[in-house]
Amino acid sequence: MTQQQRKALDELVRQGPLDVGGDIAEQRVIFHEMLSATPVPDDVSAKRGELGGVPVVTVETPGTDPSVAVLYFHSGAYVLGSAADCVGLAAEVSRRVGARAVSVDYRLAPEHPFPAALDDAVAAYRALLDEGVPSTKIALVGESAGGGLVAATLVALKDADLPQPSSAVVFSPWADLTVSGASMTGKADLDPLLTPEGLRIRARDYIGEHDPATPLASPIFADLTGLPPLLIQVGSHEILLDDAVRLASRAADHNVAVELQVWPEVPHIFQGCGALLDDADRALLAVSAFIKRNWLT
Amino acid sequence: MTQQQRKALDELVRQGPLDVGGDIAEQRVIFHEMLSATPVPDDVSAKRGELGGVPVVTVETPGTDPSVAVLYFHSGAYVLGSAADCVGLAAEVSRRVGARAVSVDYRLAPEHPFPAALDDAVAAYRALLDEGVPSTKIALVGESAGGGLVAATLVALKDADLPQPSSAVVFSPWADLTVSGASMTGKADLDPLLTPEGLRIRARDYIGEHDPATPLASPIFADLTGLPPLLIQVGSHEILLDDAVRLASRAADHNVAVELQVWPEVPHIFQGCGALLDDADRALLAVSAFIKRNWLT
Repeated sequence: MTQQQRKALDELVRQGPLDVGGDIAEQRVIFHEMLSATPVPDDVSAKRGELGGVPVVTVETPGTDPSVAVLYFHSGAYVLGSAADCVGLAAEVSRRVGARAVSVDYRLAPEHPFPAALDDAVAAYRALLDEGVPSTKIALVGESAGGGLVAATLVALKDADLPQPSSAVVFSPWADLTVSGASMTGKADLDPLLTPEGLRIRARDYIGEHDPATPLASPIFADLTGLPPLLIQVGSHEILLDDAVRLASRAADHNVAVELQVWPEVPHIFQGCGALLDDADRALLAVSAFIKRNWLT
Repeated sequence: MTQQQRKALDELVRQGPLDVGGDIAEQRVIFHEMLSATPVPDDVSAKRGELGGVPVVTVETPGTDPSVAVLYFHSGAYVLGSAADCVGLAAEVSRRVGARAVSVDYRLAPEHPFPAALDDAVAAYRALLDEGVPSTKIALVGESAGGGLVAATLVALKDADLPQPSSAVVFSPWADLTVSGASMTGKADLDPLLTPEGLRIRARDYIGEHDPATPLASPIFADLTGLPPLLIQVGSHEILLDDAVRLASRAADHNVAVELQVWPEVPHIFQGCGALLDDADRALLAVSAFIKRNWLT
């Protein structure tokens, strides 16, 4: 079944209307409609609020343990998406981890270029600490640009002398705004969703006047020493494959407890395709085990 | 405790007598003495035999399931070590996986250069199939040179149209006989056991007249398409760190279900240091879960 599922998902994604490099206003609507197409289960609670002045959506599932929290960062190439758009996948993480997922509505480019998103991420994390949640009971999770943002946030926390969270998990992170990984060409024909050209357009929107190799925008160039245990999941049919591999390589070089899991022949953020793909559930179970293991020790 | 354990282990390894590039006859004795220093538990059975004409030591622990088997490849830079020398760690794998570990006495260089070790590995695997053990019930496990040999064997099995095993696990694989990973210099001061110079000497012993970049000797250069799920574990204080990372990267590029686990600040084949290091048990539990998960599906 798995092989058939992978092919079916690939075809479905290829037929989708998203053009990540396209007109922003149009693509924001399309992105929202794509992510809203799958109804959120009835037992999921999603409440708007704010954390350190940053809008958030707090996602809860039955039986979540109030003493722990996942801080969740959505995808959308820094210009699309919202905290509400990713409630479906955040809820699946919440359900398996047994913790609320606080989805952060970080400001988007081009209206708010780098480091606006990063500032919001740090502010939200700091506010969670101020609310009395110990850092050892917080995990950061991010998808795509949100995954790159998680890695950058961990570096920024270090620079700000804030304690690291217990662990971090990134799905298909976009961790290099120079868009220079070998898979940008090597996997271009296999990736059903993203194109290097599209990412280059969005990178310019986000990075503005800064160097795209700025470590806090492209954490594959950052000093990752002192980061907490990091789980990186990626599909092998992604132009972002090498962002994941290079983030793992850099973290390893800097003595981080890092795990890289490559899932064959699946696309970008396949974890969100649980209705179509058994691999999604398997990947999320690995995420849950990883986060819980690092809470316990 | 873990941090203290890592430091204590580092100091102990630094004081050890092994010089991987030294006189072969002397180093064989030292290697044997090092690995024999830790007594094997009383409940471990180790019996000499042969498999496809290749000498093996079959390691069993209480309650091993006879329907499954681990084919195990020892370390020693292709010139040191033996099937019997690694019984301790093979037994720890056997115990957690619940399978016998058949430790292969592949021929050593320089007396028997490439591809003698590979030929023996393939012969042993083929004989296990001929004995009626289905490929889906076999996992390959290898340490260091034995880890590189496992990856090369998987490629050779493909070339020979033999079925792949259910999964493979490699500890700190030596997968590049050109000895060209960035960690060869970047981690040289941190690695308490191995030196690039030592590995270069042993690479020449093994590769003989062949190109050290030969894919069947240096599987980071091989076509890894079609390999089974692969778990790679490595310490971050190893000159071989980048062999592990590049093997993972290559496997990912070739659509293999690959997992890379980097354990911070521990040395080469730390999994064998269970008496001193809690990380060793954690790593072996991950190995066991990985092998068993791939048997089941």
